[in-house]
Amino acid sequence: MSFYAFEVRTTHRNEFVEVTAKLQVALKESGVTEGLCCVYVPHTTAGVCINEVADPTVSRDIQTHLTQVVPARGDYRHLEGNADAHIKSALIGTSLFIPVKDGKLMLGTWQGVFFCEFDGPRTRQLYVKVLAG
Amino acid sequence: MSFYAFEVRTTHRNEFVEVTAKLQVALKESGVTEGLCCVYVPHTTAGVCINEVADPTVSRDIQTHLTQVVPARGDYRHLEGNADAHIKSALIGTSLFIPVKDGKLMLGTWQGVFFCEFDGPRTRQLYVKVLAG
Amino acid sequence: MSFYAFEVRTTHRNEFVEVTAKLQVALKESGVTEGLCCVYVPHTTAGVCINEVADPTVSRDIQTHLTQVVPARGDYRHLEGNADAHIKSALIGTSLFIPVKDGKLMLGTWQGVFFCEFDGPRTRQLYVKVLAG
Repeated sequence: MSFYAFEVRTTHRNEFVEVTAKLQVALKESGVTEGLCCVYVPHTTAGVCINEVADPTVSRDIQTHLTQVVPARGDYRHLEGNADAHIKSALIGTSLFIPVKDGKLMLGTWQGVFFCEFDGPRTRQLYVKVLAG
Repeated sequence: MSFYAFEVRTTHRNEFVEVTAKLQVALKESGVTEGLCCVYVPHTTAGVCINEVADPTVSRDIQTHLTQVVPARGDYRHLEGNADAHIKSALIGTSLFIPVKDGKLMLGTWQGVFFCEFDGPRTRQLYVKVLAG
Repeated sequence: MSFYAFEVRTTHRNEFVEVTAKLQVALKESGVTEGLCCVYVPHTTAGVCINEVADPTVSRDIQTHLTQVVPARGDYRHLEGNADAHIKSALIGTSLFIPVKDGKLMLGTWQGVFFCEFDGPRTRQLYVKVLAG
């Protein structure tokens, strides 16, 4: 059926965890060589994004920016203490895709996929759906 | 053909309208049990996002944040009075998808889909495309 | 195989280049009449978004907003001088899709697709994958 669910364990409140290898596992198991690798996060206080993975300062700067713009404590109506995490999730998004060609993810040279935790530490789910076409 | 267009009527300038039930209608009519439910907003001053629907304070906080960062009145070049709405649309995005498995949308426990109005009240369109695979 | 790669040349550090015509070329060559046109940017300092193309002040305002919120010079850890571009890419995103119906992109009246350069001038790649279904 080409649907895969992976577990992602996070250890900090805000954390970007690279999950590119999980996508490659799903792609290989699917047997799809031409199509789309679709990544989905079934949470409201986390997200998924693509950016540079080689230099960890890049994802650090993205997280720092988000926390500057969306502070942990603010004049929020939501009283569970994680309104900032919901807002960050809405800004970053919970779905993205990568084209598949010749059996490979068509990521750019510097690109990798991050699971974006905004209300950890938690044990999270990451869904991958591989479509042929 | 598995393409569906729904009307969404908004009543405020900024408003998040839950549209999850419309997606379920489209999915059922399509007959697709494994695949992708793709949601698209054909407007430049609106968007679509996934977040918590059970507690209305969450979408309230997301809207409040967006309006703080992108104020209705600012030093904008666009003179139609809705530059803020275009910027919010670019930040939130106009397309997203949800995986489909066993005939169900694979939304997380707390997730629902919001049509995001940034320049209402208006009568809007929401497109849903269901892909099998 | 319905996968297409286009070159996009940018001439400024921050620049929105309309690429809707390239998507139409890909769609026509694919022969697909019902499905999804998926657009992907394989870079970590660029993105892709949909907004109004008729009035150039709109994309100007989006770029100005992003630069106000994410300044070119800031307290960044990444020392290559383009941390701002990585953050903007994460906010705008690198993938989006447009439904295809009756052989046409189902863009709204005012919508067009922008390649979003945040660290130009450069010669960039834009991937388009057309899925039938």
